[in-house]
Amino acid sequence: MFTDFRPVDDRPVYIQVKEYLKRMITKGILQADQKLPSTRELSTLLHVSRNTVITAYADLEEEGLIYTVKGKGSFVSRSKIVTTSSYRLDWRQKINDKARMAEEMDLMKHGIRWEKGMISFTSIAPDEKLFDLSNFKRAFLDRISIEGEILLNYGYAKGYKPLMEYLLRYMENKGVDLTGKDILITNGFTEGFDMIVSALSRENASVICENPTHHTAMKILRLNGFEPVGIEMEQDGIHLEKLRRALSEQLFCFAYLIPSYHNPTGIVMSPEKRMAVLNLFAKYQVPIIEDGFNEELRYSGSHVAPLIACAGKGNSVIYLGSFSKILFPGIRVGWILADKDLIDYLESIKRARTIHTSTLDQAVLYQYLHNGNFEKYLKKARSVYKRKYELAVRCCKEFIPLKRMTGDGGLHLFIELEENIHAREVLKDCYSKGVVFTPGDIFFTDQGGHHTLRLGFSRVSDEEMVKGIKLIGESVKKCMREV
Amino acid sequence: MFTDFRPVDDRPVYIQVKEYLKRMITKGILQADQKLPSTRELSTLLHVSRNTVITAYADLEEEGLIYTVKGKGSFVSRSKIVTTSSYRLDWRQKINDKARMAEEMDLMKHGIRWEKGMISFTSIAPDEKLFDLSNFKRAFLDRISIEGEILLNYGYAKGYKPLMEYLLRYMENKGVDLTGKDILITNGFTEGFDMIVSALSRENASVICENPTHHTAMKILRLNGFEPVGIEMEQDGIHLEKLRRALSEQLFCFAYLIPSYHNPTGIVMSPEKRMAVLNLFAKYQVPIIEDGFNEELRYSGSHVAPLIACAGKGNSVIYLGSFSKILFPGIRVGWILADKDLIDYLESIKRARTIHTSTLDQAVLYQYLHNGNFEKYLKKARSVYKRKYELAVRCCKEFIPLKRMTGDGGLHLFIELEENIHAREVLKDCYSKGVVFTPGDIFFTDQGGHHTLRLGFSRVSDEEMVKGIKLIGESVKKCMREV
Repeated sequence: MFTDFRPVDDRPVYIQVKEYLKRMITKGILQADQKLPSTRELSTLLHVSRNTVITAYADLEEEGLIYTVKGKGSFVSRSKIVTTSSYRLDWRQKINDKARMAEEMDLMKHGIRWEKGMISFTSIAPDEKLFDLSNFKRAFLDRISIEGEILLNYGYAKGYKPLMEYLLRYMENKGVDLTGKDILITNGFTEGFDMIVSALSRENASVICENPTHHTAMKILRLNGFEPVGIEMEQDGIHLEKLRRALSEQLFCFAYLIPSYHNPTGIVMSPEKRMAVLNLFAKYQVPIIEDGFNEELRYSGSHVAPLIACAGKGNSVIYLGSFSKILFPGIRVGWILADKDLIDYLESIKRARTIHTSTLDQAVLYQYLHNGNFEKYLKKARSVYKRKYELAVRCCKEFIPLKRMTGDGGLHLFIELEENIHAREVLKDCYSKGVVFTPGDIFFTDQGGHHTLRLGFSRVSDEEMVKGIKLIGESVKKCMREV
Repeated sequence: MFTDFRPVDDRPVYIQVKEYLKRMITKGILQADQKLPSTRELSTLLHVSRNTVITAYADLEEEGLIYTVKGKGSFVSRSKIVTTSSYRLDWRQKINDKARMAEEMDLMKHGIRWEKGMISFTSIAPDEKLFDLSNFKRAFLDRISIEGEILLNYGYAKGYKPLMEYLLRYMENKGVDLTGKDILITNGFTEGFDMIVSALSRENASVICENPTHHTAMKILRLNGFEPVGIEMEQDGIHLEKLRRALSEQLFCFAYLIPSYHNPTGIVMSPEKRMAVLNLFAKYQVPIIEDGFNEELRYSGSHVAPLIACAGKGNSVIYLGSFSKILFPGIRVGWILADKDLIDYLESIKRARTIHTSTLDQAVLYQYLHNGNFEKYLKKARSVYKRKYELAVRCCKEFIPLKRMTGDGGLHLFIELEENIHAREVLKDCYSKGVVFTPGDIFFTDQGGHHTLRLGFSRVSDEEMVKGIKLIGESVKKCMREV
């Protein structure tokens, strides 16, 4: 006994001694009323100072795990755990269909697997090498010195006030008329979208969206009992004629649109089309959830206003924003800007779900933004990603026999191969050569897109980019020969 | 024009100039093709350096908001926002019953209001004056220097690995047999409970729990279509005979129990009762959600093992843990320890809801725990709260004519007045004297408890405590005279 104590370096030793003894007591290795070694003995046995053992014993006594008899020593308390009758059940039989669906649609579990060392075009998250750690640290230290206690205590469901104020100004600068609108901070886009969708009545279970569309959004819609109906994309956004036809033929509960750097096609909806789309939805009285995805990652071209700005004083557009895809995905902060009546309900839903988003994260993000670091970071990120984007475009054009390629910026390109080529066949071949990408079919509402694929380039080095796209091109050619 | 520019001190001026101009452009104060002042002119007008204006103009041009004609100057782009037809809808007609319920049951909106300066016994959150800011800062700096990039990028839905490992050991030290179990990190108790409840099949919509019980839990149960059935409490926990009767008469989907420092009664379920309760639920094959609420806030007495430890190798107990009520509520981190099959489903639900809990929060909390700060903090907090607890108990006994008082520790006491006294009447009188507390009826599953109240004392000073409880006592006496 007492020979297997192996303390680690950077944690107080008395805590480690305490935990070690606790484990022996709760596991029954040390029995009730068993005498413990004297503090002197144990310090020799464990090679720690006697004071360390004294502190550990005192803590264990305070926690009621041991007791001391004057002049006799320390003993294990009787209160150790007695395991009682319990039973085993099959939890898979206890869970409901929604939980089952969530598991089945979980791409991280059933999607493309890849091993370390492979060239992966599956990610569209920012490159962590670009992260601006020193300014982030600065922002943390600034904010904690201003109001540390506030950051660590409960906050408001709607959000951390300075951040809310900042984002309202930020949206106003994009041209949004804030009259009658309000903001709610969320744990990223995902929570925001899920909350909105869960709050809307399901009179008409159909939701109109682009086809293809964001996979996670489609998953959340389905988990909430809605069926996405996708409308084909053109080079400048959703196909207007097909949209008009769908709206005239069927009732929709709401629309879900990604007007900028659309995921997965990378298309930016043209200003003219934005107007036309808004007019059309207004005519059919269908509200819009606008996904502000990567709106900031413009590499060239003119300023394009979000739909919610174009809607002026109208209240039918709900805007979902997030800096996750550009700044720091690890801190989960997004926001909903919408009609204040709607926000009022969403605030209560937020409170019932997660009380509020981490005040610490919100406050540090606010300070980072306030300090003006975002603008500087964005400049750097834009120039790095622009270069990567251009390299990716060149490589795809040169190496992949493609039918169509879209992507006006952002962190990914979308490729359409010849109709008779299956992207999953290409992927199989690529996988054997150590290259992976995302097959496009997962983004389609109608099981189409078997001949499409998405290439995320943000986390791929130049060298890997050339090598990887070349290999994809070779696999495509091989598949073409085999057809 | 240009006379209302008011820069703040601690934000780069060029960004403020840029945003100022942006606002004038998006609001249409500066019109398309209008010539902007030269950089020299504007620098004079705004009282900023010329370089500042040059940088601001360059940024605006990059964003496509202005354009430059060589030798002529800078002009506003045509791409400014054209507001198009949109429409207004009544969002209150669009939302569903669940959202409406969430709003109606939102205590922050419809609960007790109180003004600044009042003595408030409504909070059971920790006192922020106790927060251990310097060690928290240290933990942040330690962790960010070890793996800053990782903290800021996407993590895993299940949680940040070092924290998961730490918590598994932590639970093992409480005597839990980890065989076949797994852990999932959540955004506090609230998200964890909501996820579990949303995942369970609703064959039997009834859930058995203590009466009174945690208000938020009751709200979440109802929002998910479950009906809580409360069983009366005795001095050592839930009434065993009544529990037995209820279990024999009705089918229950699961149980929700708060065995330690029960909210709102503050009762700790005795070790003997824990065994009996577990055996009873095993007999009737009803799984248990165990709320580990404030388990650490023991001021005296012997060690009491959580139900999940007493259940040994059984898999019918789901344990929900959180340090929020003791450490830092502002960073929303909690955990679920349960059967690994169940955790597997919950992981997918977590991914579909919030992707994952803030990696930053998890990592800093991990480092704080690892550094051994929690133990030290807990000692300090326990001694402060113990003193407050004892003072509160003394005051209540002295000043309030009560029938029963419970609370074995924790941060609150629960008081039962004579049956014919209405706590809300007492509250009304107290409010006029500047004192507020939580009327107990909100915690009851059966609309009972009109004569009960909860006093949270963690954030009340000694002086306020004596004064406040005295005033409550006077109000109770007044109400007694009036009956």
